[in-house]
Amino acid sequence: MGRVTSRRRVVRIDSDSATERADTLVVEEPLEIRVGGVPVSVTMRTPGDDFDLVAGFLVTEGVVDDVDQVAAMRYCAGATADGVNTYNLIDVTLDPGAAPLDLSVQRNFYTTSSCGVCGKASIDAIRTRTRWPVAEDPVRLTTQTLAAMPDTLRAAQQVFDRTGGLHAAGLFEAGGGLLCVREDVGRHNAVDKVVGWAARERRLPLPGTVLLVSGRASFELTQKALMAGVPALASVSAPSSLAAELAEEAGMTLVGFLRGASMNVYAGGHRLQVGSGAG
Amino acid sequence: MGRVTSRRRVVRIDSDSATERADTLVVEEPLEIRVGGVPVSVTMRTPGDDFDLVAGFLVTEGVVDDVDQVAAMRYCAGATADGVNTYNLIDVTLDPGAAPLDLSVQRNFYTTSSCGVCGKASIDAIRTRTRWPVAEDPVRLTTQTLAAMPDTLRAAQQVFDRTGGLHAAGLFEAGGGLLCVREDVGRHNAVDKVVGWAARERRLPLPGTVLLVSGRASFELTQKALMAGVPALASVSAPSSLAAELAEEAGMTLVGFLRGASMNVYAGGHRLQVGSGAG
Repeated sequence: MGRVTSRRRVVRIDSDSATERADTLVVEEPLEIRVGGVPVSVTMRTPGDDFDLVAGFLVTEGVVDDVDQVAAMRYCAGATADGVNTYNLIDVTLDPGAAPLDLSVQRNFYTTSSCGVCGKASIDAIRTRTRWPVAEDPVRLTTQTLAAMPDTLRAAQQVFDRTGGLHAAGLFEAGGGLLCVREDVGRHNAVDKVVGWAARERRLPLPGTVLLVSGRASFELTQKALMAGVPALASVSAPSSLAAELAEEAGMTLVGFLRGASMNVYAGGHRLQVGSGAG
Repeated sequence: MGRVTSRRRVVRIDSDSATERADTLVVEEPLEIRVGGVPVSVTMRTPGDDFDLVAGFLVTEGVVDDVDQVAAMRYCAGATADGVNTYNLIDVTLDPGAAPLDLSVQRNFYTTSSCGVCGKASIDAIRTRTRWPVAEDPVRLTTQTLAAMPDTLRAAQQVFDRTGGLHAAGLFEAGGGLLCVREDVGRHNAVDKVVGWAARERRLPLPGTVLLVSGRASFELTQKALMAGVPALASVSAPSSLAAELAEEAGMTLVGFLRGASMNVYAGGHRLQVGSGAG
């Protein structure tokens, strides 16, 4: 796409010196998602992997049960007055056999200034229901394997080192193998891109996996992992109270402050084996 | 409110040791905002300063031009089936003389998985219009004063040190004095709380001020600063391409990577004086 980063002249100030130089910025552009021509969401995202993003959004927000219900996704022209295709508008065609889009869903997609309720009309309805019995997932994880994941994720991040402005989400096998990594200016988009990749690869649900996120673990990221059938969510930073409560309730493992060999386990500690698991 | 943090038993793992202990988590709860009974937004926020949050949201999203158009805000009961007041639902009554809420606004508030388009129906409509001529603001800032702001903000953050999970936004005078600091699990909420504080204090617009945010500078944070009439936005981390473009277009000063005595200036460098400004 060539639009993941952009160059810009900036003034670098260091104490009393000021020098002009080129800087690399992460690109942020709006993506409007329509289903059958009906606008359902606008998200600010980093271009690239847009179909993954849309597929993941539809799955994690419960718009569709499965990516099989999506017949087609295409970029629409006409986002600008002169009809130029900005590649910032994707229209989704649902399978004719799929249930029609519940218009209440569209009406109920509210903005969220706080990264993402991914709105439901009422607070009671916030907890999107998942089809996957995550609590029953028998996977076991060693803390040694978890401890190695952040370095693996960082090594796979292509853009961060150039911009400092991207979040990453990585999907790992229980043994530590990296299945997929996606980056985005929005942390929820990074997760949606990973889930959308898995959905389009017909890999959902995702038993026996760990989803690692580069930022904090919010309620919504926990919910998105749950909607993808991921049994373990790990974060290098702090979880919120509601994220811990949802993980506990859903039988999901939630690890926070994953830094080097240390970590905090907020829920689902029964899946963890301290150390290497040997002996 | 007593709900800004919550205690939770966690297992702390450090290499081969695992110990159970109490941990402090930042509280994340949904807040539904209604205007005249009509739901317009659900945001995941940290409880506290909720009226500031709502007032700031209404102003920065252009739902009202001025807080004078808000006749009343009150917590509603009935968020749960048994009618218990969860303090998670605020209904706003607009002044009878105010223009009625444009229902297209309500319909057009979409979810955003990426922290906040604060949705408009079409991409063309994303750039909320501000009433304030920020480009004309004659304020001058020294880089020495800017460099001191992050430490001032951190010292004023009450909750972060206990949870590691909060974003902060601080409003400063050009001379470096801190006017207002607010924290939230969502960085957009922290900004809305600051702007809402200013709105309720009848201080809008905010010429001669600097808004400092603890995270990255996104398009939406830039837009929110613009809607409040703030001429300078500073961030300790990276801006996005669209944030830099909007700041340039609006004549706003945008500083990123503000760390110690170093910083990058992405737009509006004419307001900055390198060093202390003396001599």
